[in-house]
Amino acid sequence: MVLVRFKQVDISNKPVVYREATAAGRIKLKPSTISLIRKGGLEKGDPVALASTAAILAVKSTPSIVALAHPLKVERTEPVVKLGKDWVEVTVTVAAHEKTGVEMEALTAVSAALLNIWDVTKAYEKDNEGQYPSTAIEWIRVTKKVKR
Amino acid sequence: MVLVRFKQVDISNKPVVYREATAAGRIKLKPSTISLIRKGGLEKGDPVALASTAAILAVKSTPSIVALAHPLKVERTEPVVKLGKDWVEVTVTVAAHEKTGVEMEALTAVSAALLNIWDVTKAYEKDNEGQYPSTAIEWIRVTKKVKR
Amino acid sequence: MVLVRFKQVDISNKPVVYREATAAGRIKLKPSTISLIRKGGLEKGDPVALASTAAILAVKSTPSIVALAHPLKVERTEPVVKLGKDWVEVTVTVAAHEKTGVEMEALTAVSAALLNIWDVTKAYEKDNEGQYPSTAIEWIRVTKKVKR
Amino acid sequence: MVLVRFKQVDISNKPVVYREATAAGRIKLKPSTISLIRKGGLEKGDPVALASTAAILAVKSTPSIVALAHPLKVERTEPVVKLGKDWVEVTVTVAAHEKTGVEMEALTAVSAALLNIWDVTKAYEKDNEGQYPSTAIEWIRVTKKVKR
Amino acid sequence: MVLVRFKQVDISNKPVVYREATAAGRIKLKPSTISLIRKGGLEKGDPVALASTAAILAVKSTPSIVALAHPLKVERTEPVVKLGKDWVEVTVTVAAHEKTGVEMEALTAVSAALLNIWDVTKAYEKDNEGQYPSTAIEWIRVTKKVKR
Amino acid sequence: MVLVRFKQVDISNKPVVYREATAAGRIKLKPSTISLIRKGGLEKGDPVALASTAAILAVKSTPSIVALAHPLKVERTEPVVKLGKDWVEVTVTVAAHEKTGVEMEALTAVSAALLNIWDVTKAYEKDNEGQYPSTAIEWIRVTKKVKR
Repeated sequence: MVLVRFKQVDISNKPVVYREATAAGRIKLKPSTISLIRKGGLEKGDPVALASTAAILAVKSTPSIVALAHPLKVERTEPVVKLGKDWVEVTVTVAAHEKTGVEMEALTAVSAALLNIWDVTKAYEKDNEGQYPSTAIEWIRVTKKVKR
Repeated sequence: MVLVRFKQVDISNKPVVYREATAAGRIKLKPSTISLIRKGGLEKGDPVALASTAAILAVKSTPSIVALAHPLKVERTEPVVKLGKDWVEVTVTVAAHEKTGVEMEALTAVSAALLNIWDVTKAYEKDNEGQYPSTAIEWIRVTKKVKR
Repeated sequence: MVLVRFKQVDISNKPVVYREATAAGRIKLKPSTISLIRKGGLEKGDPVALASTAAILAVKSTPSIVALAHPLKVERTEPVVKLGKDWVEVTVTVAAHEKTGVEMEALTAVSAALLNIWDVTKAYEKDNEGQYPSTAIEWIRVTKKVKR
Repeated sequence: MVLVRFKQVDISNKPVVYREATAAGRIKLKPSTISLIRKGGLEKGDPVALASTAAILAVKSTPSIVALAHPLKVERTEPVVKLGKDWVEVTVTVAAHEKTGVEMEALTAVSAALLNIWDVTKAYEKDNEGQYPSTAIEWIRVTKKVKR
Repeated sequence: MVLVRFKQVDISNKPVVYREATAAGRIKLKPSTISLIRKGGLEKGDPVALASTAAILAVKSTPSIVALAHPLKVERTEPVVKLGKDWVEVTVTVAAHEKTGVEMEALTAVSAALLNIWDVTKAYEKDNEGQYPSTAIEWIRVTKKVKR
Repeated sequence: MVLVRFKQVDISNKPVVYREATAAGRIKLKPSTISLIRKGGLEKGDPVALASTAAILAVKSTPSIVALAHPLKVERTEPVVKLGKDWVEVTVTVAAHEKTGVEMEALTAVSAALLNIWDVTKAYEKDNEGQYPSTAIEWIRVTKKVKR
């Protein structure tokens, strides 16, 4: 009985080309939490700086988080954070010359950034029972892919 | 000039109690991709098995993904996957006896699981230009927290 | 007193060529455990899926497990699992265009896959005293190396 | 359709007890390679020191190599290396006060140690075609488990 | 021939007590680079925020950087950054209830923080030949250890 | 409100060239500790072998320790250890064909090596109160950078 369950796509014969991907996603927060962020008033520190660092690090951890992903040498990671009325949006652009696309790297970076924002805003989002009635990570998507 | 930017919450004086957290989230996929998953027809392998493994591993990587998280000894991780008409939902329950909650671990597990599902369904979700017009990770939330 | 203890081989002047390596290895299990695997009856889950995922991830962790290994960009990992009467065999093929061979990656993948199979069959292999009288990982070898 | 593929064993209600496990394993090498090791003549460095360090580090990486393993706080790791006529044997003892056993940690440490020995003896084991006609990792087993 | 090269200290019989360690260290930078930091003018971003995040993450990576270190559950990490005329000083306090001290965690955090500061000030410290005539990491020491 | 806090330098358009960097650093130890090292008398094992292994591994962990560093494929790591009267000096040379320099890799390797030496000499450096009155890591610098 011979069994094959998972395999990495074989990219050994694909050409090395310029790859770029931009992903974005949001975390829904209470307007009062957003105000606190705007004022720089979170006790644990600035979520924007933290999310940006986490995004850049997560790009490099993608091969261990996404099991079938190929290891890549990313040449650029650029996180941008936008504050809305009741959300924070993180957009990350990743670029590399590789045989496969970099959208999983961009998506992983956005996910990690949003998780870090959740972590530092936890204290302001929980209700009296320690539950999160309204906090949510939403709309993580690939906004652009380039291959040339 | 003395500067403090980030600090981990000091939990050294908190009691060790039983902590449990359940998080859930969805990935929106094309109905045709869902059909393929139901039939076990994805070329890269079964996304449900992959997502479950990724979730369990991600719980253990949480301290390196979520920068201010404390290292914990998780005692139970249980991922459940549900297939809808145009979405896959991943729910992960995490439990431990610790001085701090485990919701970041559950949220990180859900995020990692959904990223892995994206990765193995990529080929079926992209359009002719290599873009993802409809794929999205959505509604990642904490559905329950227990502390006793 | 000047001391040199370990050094990575200097590959900076070697040409980039196509490298492929296949490694294989076995875990000796009780026939009753193998039957259980064939029937899909292990409580912790399917060892074949788990071993395959672990193999692909381990290829990417090789530089941190094998201290003197060079970091590589593997372009293909393909694990195959075979069930015998009292053993499970894992074979992993790895390929890359690199300045050095990929056999350590293939061997590490096989080792990790077999460790994961041990882990999920533990409950069925232990005797009443919690010892493993017959379980063993065996015959891990490189079955083929290609360089062209 | 609700699917459960893998789950970590729930150890949250188990008592914390003293756990100890010893695992051992061998790498079969050419007698000429063994002689070289005895004389301290390997170009890359002393395989015994390298294997010992790799074993201790691998214990700590077990939760990321063995997917369903629980994170543990190991309190002792002790690798011993024995040189035979045509083999090197690595034995590793691991101990901790935990809710679950430490044999996967000991087995992972032995595997990592043997992989590192393979890596530094590669140059002496390969034949003219770059193949390994006789090298093999063998007989990895748990020699003792203690729980008290 | 039986050989023992490295072993982790056996802490299994030591009592769990409160441990705290503070380490500090400096990076010598050009006064012009320090002015730029004070004005928030570095192109790559704020080195103080980056160093603080890196310190907290490094505490958690200590078991993989310091080979013989035991895995610990750190309960508090607090980095403080001080700007001098031609240096930046990073001080990190770490605390935990453990069987062994946490000074290696504090020292690793300080080292990582200083390396990150080096990285983001690189462009301003290099001379015309790309050399670093004056940059240096200095005086990393343990300023206080507490055990009670 | 759109915020950019950190970004990796975009190296996608830079040419791949040969890069080499040598970094060095010292740990100040008591002369009695140095004598013990010379005699091979440390209880935990040989600090020179340990520091060398740690250096080579740390080069490969640089992208996760130095947040904005790009992932690289290092082709050579060569640690050299020198024993003085009251210090140990570690020098590490790193080389690669890359679009960016390798000095952060060399500096990280030196830092990790020195931290490991601290760890194995701890018992001999502490005073009666468990403090380190004289131990210090000093003078970590880049001694040479090559780009051709």
